[in-house]
Amino acid sequence: MGIPSYIDNMSEWKDSFSYRYPLSVRFSETDAFGHMNNTVAFVYFETGRINFFKDIGLSKEWFSSGGKMIPVTADLQCDYIRQIFFDQQLHVCVKVAHIGNSSVDLHYMVVNEKEEVCLTGRGRMVQLSRETGKPVSWSENARIYLQS
Amino acid sequence: MGIPSYIDNMSEWKDSFSYRYPLSVRFSETDAFGHMNNTVAFVYFETGRINFFKDIGLSKEWFSSGGKMIPVTADLQCDYIRQIFFDQQLHVCVKVAHIGNSSVDLHYMVVNEKEEVCLTGRGRMVQLSRETGKPVSWSENARIYLQS
Amino acid sequence: MGIPSYIDNMSEWKDSFSYRYPLSVRFSETDAFGHMNNTVAFVYFETGRINFFKDIGLSKEWFSSGGKMIPVTADLQCDYIRQIFFDQQLHVCVKVAHIGNSSVDLHYMVVNEKEEVCLTGRGRMVQLSRETGKPVSWSENARIYLQS
Amino acid sequence: MGIPSYIDNMSEWKDSFSYRYPLSVRFSETDAFGHMNNTVAFVYFETGRINFFKDIGLSKEWFSSGGKMIPVTADLQCDYIRQIFFDQQLHVCVKVAHIGNSSVDLHYMVVNEKEEVCLTGRGRMVQLSRETGKPVSWSENARIYLQS
Repeated sequence: MGIPSYIDNMSEWKDSFSYRYPLSVRFSETDAFGHMNNTVAFVYFETGRINFFKDIGLSKEWFSSGGKMIPVTADLQCDYIRQIFFDQQLHVCVKVAHIGNSSVDLHYMVVNEKEEVCLTGRGRMVQLSRETGKPVSWSENARIYLQS
Repeated sequence: MGIPSYIDNMSEWKDSFSYRYPLSVRFSETDAFGHMNNTVAFVYFETGRINFFKDIGLSKEWFSSGGKMIPVTADLQCDYIRQIFFDQQLHVCVKVAHIGNSSVDLHYMVVNEKEEVCLTGRGRMVQLSRETGKPVSWSENARIYLQS
Repeated sequence: MGIPSYIDNMSEWKDSFSYRYPLSVRFSETDAFGHMNNTVAFVYFETGRINFFKDIGLSKEWFSSGGKMIPVTADLQCDYIRQIFFDQQLHVCVKVAHIGNSSVDLHYMVVNEKEEVCLTGRGRMVQLSRETGKPVSWSENARIYLQS
Repeated sequence: MGIPSYIDNMSEWKDSFSYRYPLSVRFSETDAFGHMNNTVAFVYFETGRINFFKDIGLSKEWFSSGGKMIPVTADLQCDYIRQIFFDQQLHVCVKVAHIGNSSVDLHYMVVNEKEEVCLTGRGRMVQLSRETGKPVSWSENARIYLQS
Protein backbone atom coordinates (compact mmCIF):
# COMPACT_ATOMS: atom_id res chain seq x y z
CA MET A 1 0.00 0.00 0.00
CA GLY A 2 1.59 3.26 -1.14
CA ILE A 3 1.20 6.68 0.40
CA PRO A 4 -2.18 8.32 -0.31
CA SER A 5 -1.97 10.96 -3.05
CA TYR A 6 -2.83 13.84 -0.68
CA ILE A 7 0.30 13.18 1.40
CA ASP A 8 3.72 14.26 0.10
CA ASN A 9 5.94 13.10 2.91
CA MET A 10 4.38 10.89 5.58
CA SER A 11 6.67 11.86 8.43
CA GLU A 12 6.37 15.62 7.74
CA TRP A 13 2.64 15.27 7.25
CA LYS A 14 2.28 13.47 10.57
CA ASP A 15 4.12 16.26 12.36
CA SER A 16 2.04 19.01 10.75
CA PHE A 17 -1.08 18.48 12.90
CA SER A 18 -1.53 20.53 16.04
CA TYR A 19 -5.22 19.89 16.81
CA ARG A 20 -6.08 16.56 18.46
CA TYR A 21 -9.42 15.28 19.75
CA PRO A 22 -9.53 12.18 22.04
CA LEU A 23 -11.93 9.28 21.37
CA SER A 24 -12.48 5.76 22.76
CA VAL A 25 -13.65 3.00 20.41
CA ARG A 26 -17.16 1.95 21.48
CA PHE A 27 -18.29 -1.66 21.40
CA SER A 28 -21.20 -0.76 19.13
CA GLU A 29 -18.61 0.55 16.64
CA THR A 30 -17.03 -2.87 16.15
CA ASP A 31 -18.36 -5.45 13.68
CA ALA A 32 -18.40 -9.23 13.37
CA PHE A 33 -14.81 -9.23 12.05
CA GLY A 34 -13.81 -8.14 15.57
CA HIS A 35 -12.49 -4.69 14.65
CA MET A 36 -13.86 -1.18 14.16
CA ASN A 37 -16.32 -1.16 11.27
CA ASN A 38 -14.99 0.83 8.30
CA THR A 39 -17.99 3.20 8.28
CA VAL A 40 -17.07 4.49 11.76
CA ALA A 41 -13.95 6.23 10.40
CA PHE A 42 -16.18 8.96 9.02
CA VAL A 43 -17.99 9.39 12.34
CA TYR A 44 -14.57 10.00 13.90
CA PHE A 45 -13.64 12.43 11.12
CA GLU A 46 -16.90 14.35 11.63
CA THR A 47 -16.43 14.47 15.39
CA GLY A 48 -12.86 15.70 14.99
CA ARG A 49 -13.86 18.22 12.33
CA ILE A 50 -16.71 19.76 14.31
CA ASN A 51 -14.62 20.09 17.44
CA PHE A 52 -11.82 21.58 15.36
CA PHE A 53 -14.24 24.17 13.92
CA LYS A 54 -15.39 24.96 17.45
CA ASP A 55 -11.83 25.21 18.68
CA ILE A 56 -10.70 27.72 16.03
CA GLY A 57 -13.87 29.81 16.50
CA LEU A 58 -15.57 29.04 13.20
CA SER A 59 -18.69 27.52 14.81
CA LYS A 60 -19.24 30.84 16.60
CA GLU A 61 -19.12 32.58 13.22
CA TRP A 62 -21.76 30.18 11.87
CA PHE A 63 -24.00 30.63 14.88
CA SER A 64 -23.66 34.43 14.85
CA SER A 65 -24.98 34.40 11.29
CA GLY A 66 -28.30 33.22 12.75
CA GLY A 67 -28.01 29.83 11.11
CA LYS A 68 -28.05 31.32 7.60
CA MET A 69 -25.05 29.25 6.54
CA ILE A 70 -24.35 25.57 6.97
CA PRO A 71 -21.15 23.62 6.32
CA VAL A 72 -21.76 20.75 3.92
CA THR A 73 -19.54 17.84 2.98
CA ALA A 74 -18.47 17.98 -0.68
CA ASP A 75 -16.24 14.92 -0.60
CA LEU A 76 -14.49 12.65 1.86
CA GLN A 77 -11.91 9.92 1.65
CA CYS A 78 -10.19 7.59 4.06
CA ASP A 79 -7.19 5.27 3.85
CA TYR A 80 -7.22 2.41 6.34
CA ILE A 81 -3.61 1.89 7.42
CA ARG A 82 -3.93 -0.17 10.59
CA GLN A 83 -6.84 -2.05 12.17
CA ILE A 84 -8.61 -0.43 15.12
CA PHE A 85 -10.09 -2.45 17.99
CA PHE A 86 -12.61 -2.04 20.76
CA ASP A 87 -11.61 0.17 23.67
CA GLN A 88 -8.55 1.66 22.00
CA GLN A 89 -7.85 5.25 23.00
CA LEU A 90 -7.48 7.24 19.80
CA HIS A 91 -6.83 10.80 18.78
CA VAL A 92 -8.40 12.36 15.70
CA CYS A 93 -6.06 15.03 14.34
CA VAL A 94 -7.44 17.68 11.99
CA LYS A 95 -5.78 20.47 9.98
CA VAL A 96 -6.58 22.91 7.21
CA ALA A 97 -4.84 21.90 3.99
CA HIS A 98 -6.26 24.51 1.63
CA ILE A 99 -8.72 27.41 1.87
CA GLY A 100 -10.91 28.03 -1.17
CA ASN A 101 -13.37 30.82 -1.85
CA SER A 102 -16.26 29.20 -0.01
CA SER A 103 -14.72 25.85 0.81
CA VAL A 104 -11.94 24.35 2.86
CA ASP A 105 -9.90 21.21 2.41
CA LEU A 106 -9.24 19.38 5.66
CA HIS A 107 -6.80 16.58 6.37
CA TYR A 108 -7.46 13.93 9.00
CA MET A 109 -5.24 11.51 10.89
CA VAL A 110 -6.29 8.98 13.51
CA VAL A 111 -3.55 7.64 15.77
CA ASN A 112 -3.64 5.00 18.51
CA GLU A 113 -2.09 5.01 22.00
CA LYS A 114 1.35 4.28 20.50
CA GLU A 115 1.00 7.22 18.10
CA GLU A 116 0.79 4.74 15.22
CA VAL A 117 -1.21 6.07 12.28
CA CYS A 118 -4.40 3.99 11.86
CA LEU A 119 -6.38 6.17 9.44
CA THR A 120 -5.53 9.04 7.14
CA GLY A 121 -8.04 11.07 5.22
CA ARG A 122 -9.09 14.29 3.60
CA GLY A 123 -12.23 16.02 2.46
CA ARG A 124 -13.67 19.29 1.28
CA MET A 125 -16.37 21.19 3.18
CA VAL A 126 -18.39 23.92 1.48
CA GLN A 127 -20.23 26.73 3.21
CA LEU A 128 -23.76 26.94 1.79
CA SER A 129 -26.60 29.37 2.24
CA ARG A 130 -29.39 27.50 3.96
CA GLU A 131 -31.93 29.49 1.92
CA THR A 132 -30.54 29.24 -1.60
CA GLY A 133 -28.40 26.11 -1.25
CA LYS A 134 -25.63 28.05 -3.05
CA PRO A 135 -22.02 28.41 -1.84
CA VAL A 136 -21.26 31.52 0.23
CA SER A 137 -17.76 33.02 0.31
CA TRP A 138 -15.93 32.99 3.63
CA SER A 139 -16.17 36.21 5.63
CA GLU A 140 -12.93 37.92 6.63
CA ASN A 141 -13.39 36.57 10.16
CA ALA A 142 -13.95 33.01 8.97
CA ARG A 143 -10.80 33.26 6.86
CA ILE A 144 -8.82 34.41 9.88
CA TYR A 145 -10.12 31.52 11.97
CA LEU A 146 -9.21 29.01 9.25
CA GLN A 147 -5.71 30.45 8.87
CA SER A 148 -5.01 30.49 12.59
CA MET B 1 -36.60 -15.81 30.94
CA GLY B 2 -40.29 -15.21 31.61
CA ILE B 3 -42.75 -13.46 29.34
CA PRO B 4 -42.37 -9.67 29.32
CA SER B 5 -45.00 -7.91 31.46
CA TYR B 6 -46.65 -6.20 28.47
CA ILE B 7 -47.58 -9.56 26.93
CA ASP B 8 -50.49 -11.56 28.36
CA ASN B 9 -50.42 -14.59 26.12
CA MET B 10 -47.43 -14.97 23.80
CA SER B 11 -49.16 -16.95 21.08
CA GLU B 12 -52.21 -14.63 20.95
CA TRP B 13 -49.92 -11.61 21.09
CA LYS B 14 -47.85 -12.92 18.20
CA ASP B 15 -50.97 -13.36 16.08
CA SER B 16 -52.30 -9.90 16.85
CA PHE B 17 -49.91 -8.03 14.51
CA SER B 18 -51.01 -7.24 11.00
CA TYR B 19 -48.40 -4.65 9.95
CA ARG B 20 -44.96 -6.01 8.92
CA TYR B 21 -41.93 -4.16 7.56
CA PRO B 22 -39.06 -6.13 5.97
CA LEU B 23 -35.41 -5.52 6.94
CA SER B 24 -32.03 -7.16 6.26
CA VAL B 25 -29.37 -7.15 8.97
CA ARG B 26 -26.45 -5.00 7.76
CA PHE B 27 -22.85 -5.92 8.45
CA SER B 28 -22.26 -2.56 10.15
CA GLU B 29 -25.04 -3.51 12.59
CA THR B 30 -23.13 -6.50 13.96
CA ASP B 31 -20.54 -6.24 16.73
CA ALA B 32 -17.41 -8.10 17.80
CA PHE B 33 -19.53 -10.81 19.49
CA GLY B 34 -20.59 -11.80 15.96
CA HIS B 35 -24.26 -10.89 16.30
CA MET B 36 -26.47 -7.84 15.89
CA ASN B 37 -25.48 -5.20 18.43
CA ASN B 38 -28.19 -4.64 21.06
CA THR B 39 -28.52 -0.94 20.26
CA VAL B 40 -29.71 -1.74 16.71
CA ALA B 41 -33.01 -3.16 18.02
CA PHE B 42 -34.21 0.40 18.54
CA VAL B 43 -33.21 1.44 15.03
CA TYR B 44 -35.41 -1.41 13.77
CA PHE B 45 -38.24 -0.34 16.08
CA GLU B 46 -38.01 3.25 14.81
CA THR B 47 -37.93 2.16 11.19
CA GLY B 48 -40.95 -0.09 11.72
CA ARG B 49 -42.81 2.58 13.68
CA ILE B 50 -42.30 5.35 11.12
CA ASN B 51 -43.35 3.13 8.24
CA PHE B 52 -46.37 2.00 10.27
CA PHE B 53 -47.36 5.64 10.86
CA LYS B 54 -46.98 6.28 7.14
CA ASP B 55 -49.00 3.18 6.29
CA ILE B 56 -51.98 4.10 8.49
CA GLY B 57 -51.97 7.71 7.24
CA LEU B 58 -50.75 9.41 10.41
CA SER B 59 -47.61 10.88 8.80
CA LYS B 60 -49.85 12.67 6.31
CA GLU B 61 -51.76 14.18 9.22
CA TRP B 62 -48.48 15.41 10.75
CA PHE B 63 -47.27 16.86 7.48
CA SER B 64 -50.62 18.56 6.75
CA SER B 65 -50.28 20.39 10.08
CA GLY B 66 -47.32 22.23 8.52
CA GLY B 67 -44.87 20.57 10.86
CA LYS B 68 -46.50 22.10 13.95
CA MET B 69 -46.53 18.76 15.75
CA ILE B 70 -43.79 16.18 16.17
CA PRO B 71 -43.99 12.67 17.58
CA VAL B 72 -41.53 12.18 20.43
CA THR B 73 -40.42 9.01 22.21
CA ALA B 74 -41.54 8.97 25.86
CA ASP B 75 -40.22 5.51 26.67
CA LEU B 76 -39.00 2.37 24.94
CA GLN B 77 -38.17 -1.15 26.00
CA CYS B 78 -36.91 -4.28 24.32
CA ASP B 79 -36.65 -7.93 25.33
CA TYR B 80 -33.96 -9.89 23.50
CA ILE B 81 -35.38 -13.39 22.96
CA ARG B 82 -33.14 -14.82 20.27
CA GLN B 83 -29.81 -13.71 18.80
CA ILE B 84 -29.87 -12.02 15.40
CA PHE B 85 -27.07 -12.43 12.87
CA PHE B 86 -25.70 -10.69 9.79
CA ASP B 87 -27.75 -10.99 6.62
CA GLN B 88 -30.87 -12.41 8.28
CA GLN B 89 -34.10 -11.33 6.65
CA LEU B 90 -36.31 -9.94 9.39
CA HIS B 91 -39.75 -8.43 9.73
CA VAL B 92 -40.52 -5.68 12.23
CA CYS B 93 -44.17 -5.97 13.26
CA VAL B 94 -45.89 -2.97 14.85
CA LYS B 95 -49.33 -2.49 16.40
CA VAL B 96 -51.22 0.02 18.52
CA ALA B 97 -51.72 -1.29 22.05
CA HIS B 98 -53.39 1.73 23.65
CA ILE B 99 -54.41 5.22 22.53
CA GLY B 100 -54.07 8.00 25.12
CA ASN B 101 -55.12 11.62 24.92
CA SER B 102 -51.99 12.81 23.13
CA SER B 103 -49.97 9.61 23.19
CA VAL B 104 -50.00 6.10 21.83
CA ASP B 105 -48.57 2.87 23.15
CA LEU B 106 -47.02 0.72 20.43
CA HIS B 107 -45.95 -2.90 20.59
CA TYR B 108 -43.09 -4.27 18.51
CA MET B 109 -42.09 -7.76 17.43
CA VAL B 110 -39.12 -8.73 15.27
CA VAL B 111 -39.24 -12.17 13.66
CA ASN B 112 -36.70 -14.02 11.54
CA GLU B 113 -37.16 -16.05 8.33
CA LYS B 114 -38.60 -18.96 10.32
CA GLU B 115 -41.10 -16.64 12.01
CA GLU B 116 -39.26 -17.17 15.28
CA VAL B 117 -39.61 -14.21 17.64
CA CYS B 118 -36.20 -12.55 18.13
CA LEU B 119 -37.20 -9.28 19.81
CA THR B 120 -40.31 -8.03 21.54
CA GLY B 121 -40.84 -4.48 22.72
CA ARG B 122 -43.12 -1.62 23.51
CA GLY B 123 -42.96 2.12 23.90
CA ARG B 124 -45.04 5.25 24.21
CA MET B 125 -44.93 8.09 21.66
CA VAL B 126 -46.28 11.53 22.52
CA GLN B 127 -47.41 14.15 20.05
CA LEU B 128 -45.82 17.48 20.99
CA SER B 129 -46.26 21.01 19.71
CA ARG B 130 -42.98 22.01 18.12
CA GLU B 131 -43.50 25.56 19.40
CA THR B 132 -44.43 25.01 23.02
CA GLY B 133 -42.97 21.55 23.58
CA LYS B 134 -46.29 20.62 25.25
CA PRO B 135 -48.40 17.55 24.41
CA VAL B 136 -51.18 18.10 21.83
CA SER B 137 -54.32 15.93 21.85
CA TRP B 138 -54.92 13.71 18.85
CA SER B 139 -57.24 15.16 16.20
CA GLU B 140 -60.32 13.15 15.24
CA ASN B 141 -58.53 12.11 12.06
CA ALA B 142 -55.42 10.99 13.88
CA ARG B 143 -57.56 8.93 16.25
CA ILE B 144 -59.28 7.26 13.30
CA TYR B 145 -55.93 6.42 11.71
CA LEU B 146 -54.64 4.93 14.97
CA GLN B 147 -57.78 2.82 15.45
CA SER B 148 -57.79 1.48 11.91
CA MET C 1 -45.23 11.65 32.88
CA GLY C 2 -45.00 9.66 36.12
CA ILE C 3 -41.89 8.14 37.65
CA PRO C 4 -40.70 4.96 35.88
CA SER C 5 -41.66 1.79 37.80
CA TYR C 6 -38.04 0.88 38.55
CA ILE C 7 -37.53 4.08 40.56
CA ASP C 8 -39.00 4.37 44.07
CA ASN C 9 -37.91 7.84 45.01
CA MET C 10 -36.41 10.00 42.28
CA SER C 11 -34.22 12.15 44.46
CA GLU C 12 -32.80 9.19 46.42
CA TRP C 13 -32.35 7.25 43.21
CA LYS C 14 -30.46 10.13 41.63
CA ASP C 15 -28.08 10.27 44.60
CA SER C 16 -27.44 6.54 44.60
CA PHE C 17 -25.08 6.51 41.58
CA SER C 18 -21.36 6.76 42.13
CA TYR C 19 -20.02 5.74 38.70
CA ARG C 20 -20.11 8.40 35.97
CA TYR C 21 -18.78 8.28 32.40
CA PRO C 22 -18.45 11.52 30.37
CA LEU C 23 -19.79 11.81 26.80
CA SER C 24 -20.30 14.57 24.23
CA VAL C 25 -23.29 14.44 21.89
CA ARG C 26 -21.99 13.95 18.34
CA PHE C 27 -23.56 15.66 15.35
CA SER C 28 -24.16 12.31 13.66
CA GLU C 29 -26.24 11.35 16.71
CA THR C 30 -28.82 14.08 16.09
CA ASP C 31 -31.77 13.67 13.72
CA ALA C 32 -33.93 15.90 11.54
CA PHE C 33 -35.99 16.98 14.59
CA GLY C 34 -32.84 18.77 15.75
CA HIS C 35 -32.22 16.70 18.87
CA MET C 36 -30.46 13.46 19.79
CA ASN C 37 -32.13 10.54 18.02
CA ASN C 38 -33.91 8.23 20.48
CA THR C 39 -31.90 5.17 19.39
CA VAL C 40 -28.66 6.79 20.61
CA ALA C 41 -29.75 6.46 24.25
CA PHE C 42 -28.87 2.78 24.09
CA VAL C 43 -25.45 3.49 22.61
CA TYR C 44 -24.81 5.72 25.63
CA PHE C 45 -26.11 3.02 27.99
CA GLU C 46 -23.82 0.43 26.40
CA THR C 47 -20.83 2.74 26.55
CA GLY C 48 -21.52 3.52 30.20
CA ARG C 49 -22.14 -0.13 31.03
CA ILE C 50 -18.95 -1.43 29.44
CA ASN C 51 -16.80 1.19 31.08
CA PHE C 52 -18.52 0.46 34.39
CA PHE C 53 -17.72 -3.26 34.00
CA LYS C 54 -14.13 -2.33 33.24
CA ASP C 55 -13.97 0.02 36.20
CA ILE C 56 -15.19 -2.54 38.76
CA GLY C 57 -12.87 -5.23 37.34
CA LEU C 58 -15.49 -7.48 35.76
CA SER C 59 -14.09 -7.16 32.23
CA LYS C 60 -10.80 -8.55 33.53
CA GLU C 61 -12.70 -11.54 34.90
CA TRP C 62 -14.28 -12.11 31.47
CA PHE C 63 -10.98 -11.79 29.66
CA SER C 64 -9.17 -14.08 32.11
CA SER C 65 -11.72 -16.78 31.30
CA GLY C 66 -10.21 -16.87 27.81
CA GLY C 67 -13.36 -15.47 26.24
CA LYS C 68 -15.45 -18.47 27.35
CA MET C 69 -18.20 -16.22 28.68
CA ILE C 70 -19.89 -13.23 27.12
CA PRO C 71 -22.29 -10.73 28.66
CA VAL C 72 -25.54 -10.56 26.70
CA THR C 73 -28.40 -8.08 26.91
CA ALA C 74 -31.61 -9.73 28.14
CA ASP C 75 -33.72 -6.59 28.21
CA LEU C 76 -33.33 -2.83 28.15
CA GLN C 77 -35.60 0.12 28.71
CA CYS C 78 -35.29 3.87 28.61
CA ASP C 79 -37.45 6.77 29.74
CA TYR C 80 -36.86 10.03 27.89
CA ILE C 81 -37.23 12.82 30.45
CA ARG C 82 -35.59 15.79 28.76
CA GLN C 83 -34.47 16.44 25.19
CA ILE C 84 -30.75 16.17 24.45
CA PHE C 85 -29.02 18.37 21.87
CA PHE C 86 -25.84 18.41 19.82
CA ASP C 87 -22.62 19.16 21.67
CA GLN C 88 -24.08 18.79 25.16
CA GLN C 89 -21.64 17.40 27.70
CA LEU C 90 -23.36 14.47 29.39
CA HIS C 91 -22.58 11.91 32.04
CA VAL C 92 -23.86 8.35 31.89
CA CYS C 93 -24.26 7.04 35.43
CA VAL C 94 -24.47 3.28 36.01
CA LYS C 95 -25.16 1.18 39.10
CA VAL C 96 -25.97 -2.39 40.06
CA ALA C 97 -29.60 -2.69 41.16
CA HIS C 98 -29.81 -6.45 41.68
CA ILE C 99 -27.47 -9.43 41.31
CA GLY C 100 -29.02 -12.68 40.11
CA ASN C 101 -27.50 -16.12 39.76
CA SER C 102 -26.01 -15.48 36.31
CA SER C 103 -27.45 -12.07 35.61
CA VAL C 104 -27.31 -8.52 36.85
CA ASP C 105 -29.83 -5.72 36.76
CA LEU C 106 -28.28 -2.34 35.99
CA HIS C 107 -29.79 1.10 36.32
CA TYR C 108 -28.79 3.99 34.06
CA MET C 109 -29.09 7.75 34.35
CA VAL C 110 -27.93 10.35 31.84
CA VAL C 111 -27.53 13.91 33.14
CA ASN C 112 -26.61 17.13 31.33
CA GLU C 113 -24.18 19.91 32.34
CA LYS C 114 -26.72 21.27 34.84
CA GLU C 115 -27.09 17.83 36.42
CA GLU C 116 -30.64 17.66 35.06
CA VAL C 117 -31.82 14.11 34.42
CA CYS C 118 -32.33 13.58 30.66
CA LEU C 119 -32.65 9.80 30.47
CA THR C 120 -33.31 7.06 32.99
CA GLY C 121 -33.17 3.37 32.24
CA ARG C 122 -32.57 -0.15 33.36
CA GLY C 123 -31.76 -3.52 31.86
CA ARG C 124 -30.68 -7.03 32.67
CA MET C 125 -27.41 -8.54 31.41
CA VAL C 126 -26.86 -12.30 31.45
CA GLN C 127 -23.51 -14.06 31.42
CA LEU C 128 -23.59 -16.78 28.77
CA SER C 129 -21.21 -19.54 27.81
CA ARG C 130 -19.98 -18.76 24.33
CA GLU C 131 -19.95 -22.49 23.55
CA THR C 132 -23.32 -23.64 24.82
CA GLY C 133 -25.20 -20.33 24.75
CA LYS C 134 -26.46 -21.23 28.26
CA PRO C 135 -26.31 -18.93 31.32
CA VAL C 136 -23.25 -19.36 33.56
CA SER C 137 -23.39 -18.51 37.28
CA TRP C 138 -21.21 -15.68 38.52
CA SER C 139 -17.87 -16.73 39.99
CA GLU C 140 -17.09 -15.61 43.54
CA ASN C 141 -14.76 -12.97 42.12
CA ALA C 142 -17.39 -11.64 39.72
CA ARG C 143 -19.85 -11.40 42.60
CA ILE C 144 -17.35 -9.40 44.63
CA TYR C 145 -16.75 -7.02 41.74
CA LEU C 146 -20.48 -6.48 41.26
CA GLN C 147 -21.06 -5.83 44.97
CA SER C 148 -18.20 -3.37 45.27
CA MET D 1 -17.91 20.98 -8.52
CA GLY D 2 -16.00 19.09 -11.21
CA ILE D 3 -16.28 15.42 -12.02
CA PRO D 4 -14.47 13.15 -9.52
CA SER D 5 -11.11 11.90 -10.81
CA TYR D 6 -12.24 8.26 -10.96
CA ILE D 7 -14.93 9.09 -13.52
CA ASP D 8 -13.97 9.74 -17.15
CA ASN D 9 -17.35 10.44 -18.65
CA MET D 10 -20.27 10.87 -16.26
CA SER D 11 -23.00 9.70 -18.61
CA GLU D 12 -21.09 6.60 -19.75
CA TRP D 13 -20.10 5.89 -16.16
CA LYS D 14 -23.69 6.13 -15.00
CA ASP D 15 -24.77 3.62 -17.66
CA SER D 16 -22.03 1.15 -16.80
CA PHE D 17 -23.64 -0.19 -13.60
CA SER D 18 -25.80 -3.27 -13.78
CA TYR D 19 -26.09 -4.20 -10.08
CA ARG D 20 -28.56 -2.17 -7.99
CA TYR D 21 -29.59 -2.62 -4.34
CA PRO D 22 -32.68 -0.80 -3.00
CA LEU D 23 -32.59 1.21 0.26
CA SER D 24 -34.90 3.60 2.13
CA VAL D 25 -33.42 6.48 4.10
CA ARG D 26 -34.12 5.89 7.81
CA PHE D 27 -35.02 8.69 10.18
CA SER D 28 -32.11 7.80 12.45
CA GLU D 29 -29.83 8.40 9.44
CA THR D 30 -30.75 12.08 9.19
CA ASP D 31 -29.08 14.80 11.25
CA ALA D 32 -30.01 18.19 12.66
CA PHE D 33 -29.42 19.84 9.25
CA GLY D 34 -32.51 17.92 8.10
CA HIS D 35 -30.75 15.67 5.58
CA MET D 36 -28.93 12.35 5.54
CA ASN D 37 -25.80 12.60 7.68
CA ASN D 38 -22.61 12.38 5.58
CA THR D 39 -21.31 9.34 7.48
CA VAL D 40 -24.28 7.24 6.32
CA ALA D 41 -23.02 7.23 2.72
CA PHE D 42 -20.45 4.62 3.73
CA VAL D 43 -23.08 2.45 5.42
CA TYR D 44 -24.93 2.46 2.09
CA PHE D 45 -21.72 1.65 0.20
CA GLU D 46 -20.99 -1.27 2.54
CA THR D 47 -24.53 -2.59 2.27
CA GLY D 48 -24.40 -2.37 -1.51
CA ARG D 49 -20.93 -3.91 -1.66
CA ILE D 50 -21.77 -6.91 0.53
CA ASN D 51 -24.95 -7.66 -1.36
CA PHE D 52 -23.02 -7.29 -4.63
CA PHE D 53 -20.41 -9.81 -3.40
CA LYS D 54 -23.25 -12.15 -2.45
CA ASP D 55 -24.95 -11.66 -5.79
CA ILE D 56 -21.87 -12.50 -7.87
CA GLY D 57 -21.05 -15.54 -5.68
CA LEU D 58 -17.95 -14.21 -3.97
CA SER D 59 -19.38 -14.49 -0.45
CA LYS D 60 -19.90 -18.20 -1.06
CA GLU D 61 -16.21 -18.46 -1.98
CA TRP D 62 -15.24 -16.73 1.28
CA PHE D 63 -17.50 -18.94 3.37
CA SER D 64 -16.33 -22.12 1.66
CA SER D 65 -12.78 -21.23 2.70
CA GLY D 66 -13.92 -21.82 6.28
CA GLY D 67 -13.54 -18.17 7.17
CA LYS D 68 -9.80 -18.20 6.48
CA MET D 69 -10.01 -15.05 4.39
CA ILE D 70 -11.74 -11.76 5.12
CA PRO D 71 -12.31 -8.79 2.83
CA VAL D 72 -10.91 -5.59 4.34
CA THR D 73 -11.37 -1.98 3.30
CA ALA D 74 -8.10 -0.42 2.07
CA ASP D 75 -9.56 2.93 1.12
CA LEU D 76 -12.90 4.58 0.45
CA GLN D 77 -14.05 7.89 -0.97
CA CYS D 78 -17.35 9.58 -1.60
CA ASP D 79 -18.44 12.65 -3.54
CA TYR D 80 -21.67 14.24 -2.34
CA ILE D 81 -23.49 15.47 -5.44
CA ARG D 82 -27.04 15.99 -4.25
CA GLN D 83 -28.60 16.13 -0.78
CA ILE D 84 -30.50 13.05 0.42
CA PHE D 85 -33.55 13.29 2.67
CA PHE D 86 -35.55 11.09 5.01
CA ASP D 87 -37.72 8.42 3.41
CA GLN D 88 -36.23 8.73 -0.07
CA GLN D 89 -36.13 5.47 -1.96
CA LEU D 90 -32.57 5.01 -3.21
CA HIS D 91 -30.57 2.50 -5.16
CA VAL D 92 -26.93 1.75 -4.43
CA CYS D 93 -25.22 0.67 -7.65
CA VAL D 94 -21.93 -1.23 -7.44
CA LYS D 95 -19.46 -2.38 -10.10
CA VAL D 96 -15.95 -3.76 -10.38
CA ALA D 97 -13.58 -1.14 -11.81
CA HIS D 98 -10.28 -3.00 -11.57
CA ILE D 99 -9.14 -6.42 -10.32
CA GLY D 100 -5.72 -6.57 -8.67
CA ASN D 101 -3.76 -9.54 -7.42
CA SER D 102 -5.48 -9.75 -4.05
CA SER D 103 -7.62 -6.63 -4.22
CA VAL D 104 -10.50 -5.16 -6.17
CA ASP D 105 -11.44 -1.60 -6.94
CA LEU D 106 -15.18 -0.98 -6.70
CA HIS D 107 -17.19 1.98 -7.91
CA TYR D 108 -20.38 3.13 -6.19
CA MET D 109 -23.30 5.27 -7.30
CA VAL D 110 -26.38 6.17 -5.25
CA VAL D 111 -29.40 7.42 -7.20
CA ASN D 112 -32.78 8.68 -6.01
CA GLU D 113 -36.30 7.91 -7.30
CA LYS D 114 -35.76 10.21 -10.30
CA GLU D 115 -32.50 8.42 -11.16
CA GLU D 116 -30.60 11.54 -10.20
CA VAL D 117 -27.07 10.82 -8.97
CA CYS D 118 -26.79 11.74 -5.26
CA LEU D 119 -23.50 10.09 -4.34
CA THR D 120 -20.58 8.70 -6.30
CA GLY D 121 -17.69 6.81 -4.79
CA ARG D 122 -14.95 4.26 -5.08
CA GLY D 123 -12.78 2.14 -2.86
CA ARG D 124 -10.38 -0.74 -2.77
CA MET D 125 -11.04 -3.97 -0.87
CA VAL D 126 -8.21 -6.38 -0.08
CA GLN D 127 -8.58 -10.07 0.70
CA LEU D 128 -6.58 -10.86 3.83
CA SER D 129 -5.71 -14.08 5.60
CA ARG D 130 -7.42 -13.98 8.98
CA GLU D 131 -4.43 -15.79 10.49
CA THR D 132 -1.49 -13.84 9.11
CA GLY D 133 -3.21 -10.55 8.29
CA LYS D 134 -1.40 -10.69 4.92
CA PRO D 135 -3.03 -10.25 1.49
CA VAL D 136 -4.09 -13.49 -0.26
CA SER D 137 -4.30 -13.67 -4.07
CA TRP D 138 -7.72 -14.26 -5.59
CA SER D 139 -8.50 -17.89 -6.44
CA GLU D 140 -9.44 -18.71 -10.03
CA ASN D 141 -13.08 -18.96 -8.93
CA ALA D 142 -13.03 -15.60 -7.15
CA ARG D 143 -11.53 -14.03 -10.27
CA ILE D 144 -14.31 -15.49 -12.41
CA TYR D 145 -16.96 -14.16 -10.02
CA LEU D 146 -15.41 -10.69 -10.08
CA GLN D 147 -15.20 -10.64 -13.88
CA SER D 148 -18.78 -11.80 -14.36
